[in-house]
Amino acid sequence: MTSSADAAARATAETIRGGDIRTAARLMRDLDDGRPAAVAVMRELYRHTGRAFVLGVTGNPGAGKSTVVDALIHFYRQAGKRVGVVAVDPTSPFSGGAILGDRIRMQRHATDPGVFIRSLATRGHLGGLSRSTGDVVAVLDAMGYDVVIIETVGVGQDEVDVVSQAETAVVVTVPGLGDEIQAIKAGILEIADVLVVNKSDREGADRTVRDLVAMLELRGHNAAEVEIVRTVATTGKGIDELAHAIDRHRARQAPSGAVTGEGVAPRIRRRAQATLRELVLDELRRAADATLAARQDLVDAVAQRTTDPYTAADELVRATRARA
Amino acid sequence: MTSSADAAARATAETIRGGDIRTAARLMRDLDDGRPAAVAVMRELYRHTGRAFVLGVTGNPGAGKSTVVDALIHFYRQAGKRVGVVAVDPTSPFSGGAILGDRIRMQRHATDPGVFIRSLATRGHLGGLSRSTGDVVAVLDAMGYDVVIIETVGVGQDEVDVVSQAETAVVVTVPGLGDEIQAIKAGILEIADVLVVNKSDREGADRTVRDLVAMLELRGHNAAEVEIVRTVATTGKGIDELAHAIDRHRARQAPSGAVTGEGVAPRIRRRAQATLRELVLDELRRAADATLAARQDLVDAVAQRTTDPYTAADELVRATRARA
Repeated sequence: MTSSADAAARATAETIRGGDIRTAARLMRDLDDGRPAAVAVMRELYRHTGRAFVLGVTGNPGAGKSTVVDALIHFYRQAGKRVGVVAVDPTSPFSGGAILGDRIRMQRHATDPGVFIRSLATRGHLGGLSRSTGDVVAVLDAMGYDVVIIETVGVGQDEVDVVSQAETAVVVTVPGLGDEIQAIKAGILEIADVLVVNKSDREGADRTVRDLVAMLELRGHNAAEVEIVRTVATTGKGIDELAHAIDRHRARQAPSGAVTGEGVAPRIRRRAQATLRELVLDELRRAADATLAARQDLVDAVAQRTTDPYTAADELVRATRARA
Repeated sequence: MTSSADAAARATAETIRGGDIRTAARLMRDLDDGRPAAVAVMRELYRHTGRAFVLGVTGNPGAGKSTVVDALIHFYRQAGKRVGVVAVDPTSPFSGGAILGDRIRMQRHATDPGVFIRSLATRGHLGGLSRSTGDVVAVLDAMGYDVVIIETVGVGQDEVDVVSQAETAVVVTVPGLGDEIQAIKAGILEIADVLVVNKSDREGADRTVRDLVAMLELRGHNAAEVEIVRTVATTGKGIDELAHAIDRHRARQAPSGAVTGEGVAPRIRRRAQATLRELVLDELRRAADATLAARQDLVDAVAQRTTDPYTAADELVRATRARA
């Protein structure tokens, strides 16, 4: 990196820190495209991160996550905090559309300069969604947003990876879901720091709370610390209590970035590891896809059954590693 | 590979081809653990693959996929075919449990030696689910199962990757889902070769069919060829028609493994590419995780903010590539 490139990266970083949304959006696109200049800007911005509170919100499709997030935005805005939202939609790999209730939120917060909402979708087979999420969180953090909310549909490994980047993970569910959806919940339950039973005015809310308590008992570590909060997000009922439960969870962690006597807090270390892993995998994925594009002869050989995929994959791995 | 190791791999492959379920199950575990000896067995087995019809079934949680798959198993068994099933559950990364309706199917098909069901779950952060699916499909294919069904909850990139390994992709939906779930459908719709409206005795089935037709019109390529079939899988209604729609789709493709005048059929090439890519990414992921485990000093440095994750990731990528 030349010193003039360094200076350019610093200047861009300063523009973004000054609140220039358009420059921030361009940086996010450039990061997705893997441009080295964008990474240089991130190195500059990173020095100004670590101050935002990063909150993850996930849950069953149909549980009303977007409404809960909307109510939390409102709560934090009332408290004078600036809020950034990363709405992650890993379910629409082809159309690249944003399905989470952005439009509704946009209407309510569109004119509020204290709220910034960015939607992310996986794009075809490129992967890297978790990495992009981390990048956007870092940008919003550096821009001075006090709270950054990562919202995602909670149903797969992608989502677990995404939410592992948050300091506090909120999992939203509702009464009366079918068995299959209940079972799905078991997977995301294990990452929950705070549980929300939304639409708790519905029949079956008591039973859902009892089920969650029973599931938590099976979970083991730290389960006793997981609070269960009832909300009716459409009316705002229970949202204050949810925000306080989130605060209590946060307070139980070491302060963000703090180094204790035994080194950094485990959760900060885990987040660092998750971020690093996503960056490394993203880079390796790009290299693998480039190699695969360059070695279509191997794809042909496997398709024509003149070689087996295991032998062809060995050669591709060697070629990927050799790439600059 | 020594010739005695070669001979051992051949012997194991023959045992598996002879129908030894226990040896097959051990091979699948060894593949997941990344044992080179298991890969040698796969190379042997691969020569005997390419005969099974590989069918993917995915769809919304709660759409009744498991019941549809159960009915299809019954249909193919009546036709004298042996059926293998890979039930992929990417939703329970921690517990490793199988949530798809295995238990129900097990009861019905448990005593039928013509049916083999294997459940797969992601295991923590190791990834590689798509790769494992491809391995299991290849093993079942080599064992002589006529039809191999890949069943997965259809909600994320993982599932799209998994289903891309099938020759024909069936997407199951139901009338009366909420808006968010409808939107999720848009993502998996784009990979559908045959669409199923299950529980079609419910109110709203006509509207769901109309919605699907409208969505297909937006899709573009080959949309006209996508048949929409109404089923009530619990009673078996519409299952024959579904099986015939699947057959028609299959017939429109080039025969499995066939080489035409212009080379192999595009779909066979795509499957080869998907399989190769999964094998390569799985290998790179393993290497990255090993590097990350060996370089916890870099995780500490990021956690303590003495370096930024972008610089640390560069170093990890270099170290991963250097690994043998």
